[in-house]
Formats: sequence, C-alpha cells, structure tokens
Amino acid sequence: MSKKYSEMSKEELNAEKASLEKRYGEFKAKGLKLDMSRGKPGSDQLDLSSGLNDVKDYIENGVDLRNYGILDGIPSCKKLFADLMCVNPKNVIVGPNASLTLMFDYISQCYTHGAGDIPWCKQENIKFLCPVPGYDRHFTILEHFGIEMININMMKDGPDMDKIEEYVKDASVKGIICVPKYSNPQGITFSDEVVRRIAALKPAAKDFRIIWDNAYCVHDLDENGDKLLNIFDVLTEYGNEDMVIEVCSTSKITFPGAGVSALIASDNNIAEIKKRLGAQTISYDKMNQFRHVQFFKDANGVLNHMKKHAAILKPKFDTVLKHLDNELSGKGIASWFNPKGGYFISLDVMNGCAKRVGELCREAGVVLTTVGATFPYGRDENNSNIRIAPSYPTVDELNTAAELLCICVRLAAVEKLLG
Amino acid sequence: MSKKYSEMSKEELNAEKASLEKRYGEFKAKGLKLDMSRGKPGSDQLDLSSGLNDVKDYIENGVDLRNYGILDGIPSCKKLFADLMCVNPKNVIVGPNASLTLMFDYISQCYTHGAGDIPWCKQENIKFLCPVPGYDRHFTILEHFGIEMININMMKDGPDMDKIEEYVKDASVKGIICVPKYSNPQGITFSDEVVRRIAALKPAAKDFRIIWDNAYCVHDLDENGDKLLNIFDVLTEYGNEDMVIEVCSTSKITFPGAGVSALIASDNNIAEIKKRLGAQTISYDKMNQFRHVQFFKDANGVLNHMKKHAAILKPKFDTVLKHLDNELSGKGIASWFNPKGGYFISLDVMNGCAKRVGELCREAGVVLTTVGATFPYGRDENNSNIRIAPSYPTVDELNTAAELLCICVRLAAVEKLLG
Repeated sequence: MSKKYSEMSKEELNAEKASLEKRYGEFKAKGLKLDMSRGKPGSDQLDLSSGLNDVKDYIENGVDLRNYGILDGIPSCKKLFADLMCVNPKNVIVGPNASLTLMFDYISQCYTHGAGDIPWCKQENIKFLCPVPGYDRHFTILEHFGIEMININMMKDGPDMDKIEEYVKDASVKGIICVPKYSNPQGITFSDEVVRRIAALKPAAKDFRIIWDNAYCVHDLDENGDKLLNIFDVLTEYGNEDMVIEVCSTSKITFPGAGVSALIASDNNIAEIKKRLGAQTISYDKMNQFRHVQFFKDANGVLNHMKKHAAILKPKFDTVLKHLDNELSGKGIASWFNPKGGYFISLDVMNGCAKRVGELCREAGVVLTTVGATFPYGRDENNSNIRIAPSYPTVDELNTAAELLCICVRLAAVEKLLG
Repeated sequence: MSKKYSEMSKEELNAEKASLEKRYGEFKAKGLKLDMSRGKPGSDQLDLSSGLNDVKDYIENGVDLRNYGILDGIPSCKKLFADLMCVNPKNVIVGPNASLTLMFDYISQCYTHGAGDIPWCKQENIKFLCPVPGYDRHFTILEHFGIEMININMMKDGPDMDKIEEYVKDASVKGIICVPKYSNPQGITFSDEVVRRIAALKPAAKDFRIIWDNAYCVHDLDENGDKLLNIFDVLTEYGNEDMVIEVCSTSKITFPGAGVSALIASDNNIAEIKKRLGAQTISYDKMNQFRHVQFFKDANGVLNHMKKHAAILKPKFDTVLKHLDNELSGKGIASWFNPKGGYFISLDVMNGCAKRVGELCREAGVVLTTVGATFPYGRDENNSNIRIAPSYPTVDELNTAAELLCICVRLAAVEKLLG
C-alpha cells in the first residue's frame, strides 16, 4: 500500500527524497535522448500506408485528376469522408494536408467576412471558449487573430456545460474550439448529454461558431472505443445546424506530412466557404485525394487500417499507464485518465510542480510537451498539467521514459512538500 | 491584299456578310464542342510528368518526410525553386498545389495583420493597380477583400509606368498585381526598363506590396524565349526589397491538380509569413515536394522538361496565329501579339464586338474565356478583348476553332459597321 505524501512526516519525506534522487541519478547517467513531446506516429505506423505510393490511377468518372478543376474535393473522396463521419457528401469539403489549415482559414474567413454578421475584425473584444487543458495549436490560431480566450474546465464527460451556457449569454463570445472525441490531451470523449447541450445552445451572438476538431474520430486503442454522438444529427432538432464546423484528417491515419483533411458543415456554411475557396485556390491536391480513396476503397477500409495502428499504439499506452499506476497510485500527488483512444495521456501532478517535473525530465534527457502549452497563452495557472505523447518512442524507450517521469513527479512533489 | 472593313462600301460589306454567314453556317452544322476558355494543359503534356508517381523515397537527410515537421518546405525543394528563380533558398517558402493560395493567403495576411503598418481591414478605401487586360483570378482575390481595383493599360513592354508612378503618390494605393513574364493574356514580358522603374517606385504607402506572379517563368515556346530581369536583383539598389512578393508553381510544369508552388520574398517578409504559417499549418505536403525534386533532380531538369512542353505547345500557338494572320490581317478590325511563351493569345477585336464574337462562337460550339473576364469586375469598357487558350484542344481542333473564331470576328465587325 502506498502512503499519501501529504501524510508523511518530514523524516519519511527526506528518506523518500534520498531514494528518489538515487534512482534519478542512475537514469541521468544513462544519457537518455527521448522525445514524448508531440503526438507523432512512429515510423512503423507510417509504414502501414506504404501502399498509398503504389496508386497510379488518376482518372475518376472520365475526369483527369491531374488537371485543373473540382474545387471542393473529388466525389469519391468526399464520399469516403462522408461515410466515415456519417454525413452527406454535399456537406463535405476535402482539404489540404492539415485540418489545422481548414480551421485557420475558417476563423480567418469569419474575421475578414464574418459568419452571417459583421466581420469579426469590425467587432471589438471578441472571445472564444476553450475547454482546458486543450490543444496548443488551437490556441495559437485564436491568439493570431487577437481573439480573447476564456478557459472552461474539462469534466469527466466533456467541458463544464453550466459555465458554457452562462458565457454564451454574452454576445461578444463568438465560439468554442474543442476536440470532442479523445480530447487532446485528456482523451475524454464528450458524453451524449454534453453533445446535446452543446447542440442546444442558444448563444446571444448570432455569428457563434463551434470548431469541432474531430481529429481522433476513428482513433480507438482497441475494440472498446468510445462512441461520440454525431452532433449534426442533433443540431437540426434545435435549428442550429449552422453553428458547427467539424474537421478531421488522415494525419494520424496515413501520413502527417502528406495526408488529406476534410471539413463538414451545413449547406449554408459550405456555400459561404466555397465562395472563399473559389478565390483562394484552383483545387487542393486531387491526386493525393484519389490515392487515399484507391488505397482504402471505403470507410471500412479506413476502420480496418485503424486496427493496425491500435495494435502498435495500445502496448505503448499500456506501458506508460502501468508505470503511472505502479509509481504514482495512492500517493495523492497525481491523477490521470485511462484514454480509450487518441494520442495522449494527460497527467496532473501536484499543483506548482509541473514545470519542475519538465525540468527534471529534460535534464535527464526526456523531452515532454512544454508545460503550459495545454492552456491558452501557455498559462497553466495551477502549474500542474503534463501532456504525455507515447506514440513515437518504442515500448522499451517508454518503459525507461515513463519510469523516469514518475520518479520526477514524485521528486518534485517531495521537494515541494519539504518547502 | 485585304481591304480595310472601314473602307468598304455598304454593298461590299453586305457581300462580305453573306459570304461569312455561309461559312459560319457550315461550321455551325458540324456540331462542334471545343473549349478554348482556360489555360489547361493537354493530357499529352500531363503524361510528360508520369515519372513523378514512380518516386518512392521519403527520407531526406535522415528526416522522414511522411511525418510532422518542416513548415516552409523541404530543403531540396527550396533549393530547386531558388535555383530556378535565381534567389537564395532562405528567401523561398514552398507552398501548396496552387500559387493562387499563396497570393490569397498573403493578401489575407495584409488584410488581417497588415504589411508593416495598420492592417488593411482597419484602413478605408484601399486600392490596387491592375495592369489590363489581366488574369481574372487575381481580380477575384482583390474583389473578395473589397480592395478597389484601378485599371492600368498594358503597353508593348509592360504596364503604363507613367500612370503607375502617378498613382502610387496616393497612400491609399497599396499595391500592384501582375504577371511580369508572358503576361496573362497578352504574353508580354516586362522590359528591363519597366522592371527597373517598378523596383524604383517610391509609393506614399509604406505598406505597398507588389504581387509578382511569375506563373510562366520557364514557359517559353521555343529557344528564343523572353528574358525577365530578376526584380530582386534590382530592388536592393533602391532599398525596396520588402516591396515584392513573387510566386510561381509547377501547375503548368507537372500537374495543375497535384503540383507544388513557391513564394519568394525578402527576409522580413519571409519572417512575417512564417509567423502566420506557424498558426495556419503543420506543413504543406512534403512527399509531393520530394516527388518533384526526385523527378527533376535540379533546375536544369525542369528546363529540359519545359522543352518537351514547348514542343507540344508551339504548333498549337502557330496554328491559331496562322489563322489570325490569314483571316484578320490588314482588315483593321483586330490586333494581337505573337507571344514567345505563356499560355494565351490576346485578341483585340473591333470595339463593341467582343461579346458578340463570344456569342457567335458559343452558338457554333466553341467556348472562349468569358468576355470581360480579363478586366477587374468583369468590365471590359471597350468590349474588345478576347483571351484565346490554345493549349487544351488538338492542332486539328484548333484549326477548326481558330478559323471559326476568325469568321466570328469578321462577322461581328461587319454587323457592327452595317449598324
């Protein structure tokens, strides 16, 4: 049985510290060089999609995809994403390599041309609600456009909906940006009730938009994956179908460096986005779209492919979680979720200790995501959240890195308690 | 010897009309279906780049290009464009399929964040100078952002520089957008003197920007291609290196539907653009960049490849020009340039007749670029400019289409003169 650190005497803490420092020193001596900072697939995962490069076809329904034309995605690729996301192909636009670009460009469009109201650049002090901890690149987009970010705490089943329902009464609050399935970093999937409450929102701002970044839509770690309610099925009940812009991509299905993204939206929003796209591009890369369609054949092909990713990723998540369980359970100094999918494990250490943990890890050769990055403006007021990305290192490396991380979490807590 | 239409008697014109109508009727009876509306490469041109799909490598200098990372282009692809455009790789950003996106995104950036001054969205009544006739998609971008467009006539050696030098004294004039080599549609290359006068401009607006769309940088029709002075070599003489944003792409080198684009700019501008890119994307498609590098090897590889395009295109241009010469010379009803490269022939018909020519052609099954499209807001005040795109039809088809076009040009003129 573990003893809570808060219940330890000074002597016990000092003994614990000495023992941890000894272990830490041994790790430091190894001269490690491990990176758990970003959700990068391993090269064995990338090899799963080698077949993409064997696709040589470029004619679809008599159309030469090498040439000009087709603004919003080739029909077969729109259908592939539509089937995967359970929507109508007419509500899909197939995009470039990164869905980040689709989100940035949409926010930019709201900024320059508005979302059915005055352009955001002509309105003062506009704000977005940001479930925290969250994805740093979301925050970067909002900060780029000078949109004020308001933290909304994540609960076990999604963001704090009472808070959100309160905030949207303010017409200067223009939207929410979130990852509804296997949230980054906690791996939380919004419950049906949360999805319904979001779909039913009645914001004061008529140009209110929810960026629904479904980055991990098919990224289960095993066959007991979470199910996310399709928000577009619910939105219509409330006449709110224009409120949500959903995006996804193949970044973590095929190649982060050469994938295909998609945007899903209402008829009205698709029409507005196409107006902009007609000025912004000739088309996105149609041959890469076709490559993906030919490689997967259909949505089932994608789902089967994801099982191969899961077989590689699950042991990595299990390795990290095993160490967290063994080393941190019952000590009252850390908490975490056991995600059923996604790319991250979110670890909350003792308040005031996260930066110190990052520092200790770095000094011993293990790089974590910059502490604070999971919050708007890089500010984790509690200095407690650490995002762990287990995908890139091998299981052996993770065994080492996770054990070291646990030692650092404990050591930082002891240091703090000893003052 | 042709007789000028203006010197013909009413009887002569009536006889000419009857003869032309007979020929027109014969063409109409053929039930043609030809498209000379857009600068689309033929499929034989696209076949020249089939080798792109054979590239299987994805590791450059130990970096796995399938994975995340590298915001501004892989080093070898930056070098390829840098060598081609005679600039330093550090001044190159490799972009997505369409250079149009690079232009749109840059104008958007100026609109939302400015170009070293107040964002354009916070300034009133801003304007751009547009050499005319010009490229419709340039005008679409400017119109999208509500930027007022001012026509600047094209002369034989580039835009009317006296007018430009006058207009830039107005601080609300924020830029020029142009195609300096083989201009779209006239195929005019700016003379060294024009390039120097542009580089030496002293605009009142300190956030003045020239969008230098070098779309046809290596697109000569034979070995006697035009030479365009490298504006970046001249800009430094005047301390104006921040004034120009150059773009180009492989749309008409490899595939319009799956190419690579590039942006060339000063250190300061590159830094500003990278700030935006860091929020907008993870990276553009790096595997496609590498595919292009591996296929071409180096800048010489591109130049040799372009000779194969020229061998296909030159007979097409010659075919159209032969008909224009045979049918329209000396009649005082049309003028055109003989371009040494690019994708278009610009035909100026008798004032007030261009729309009628487009109509007559369409009724006989030949589609031309919409008349007016070569001017901002689609307004060709003289109703005289027609853009001919000879690349897509075969030489046989062009023989038919060009003869029909000439008949229509003559018929429209006769109709006009007969009142």
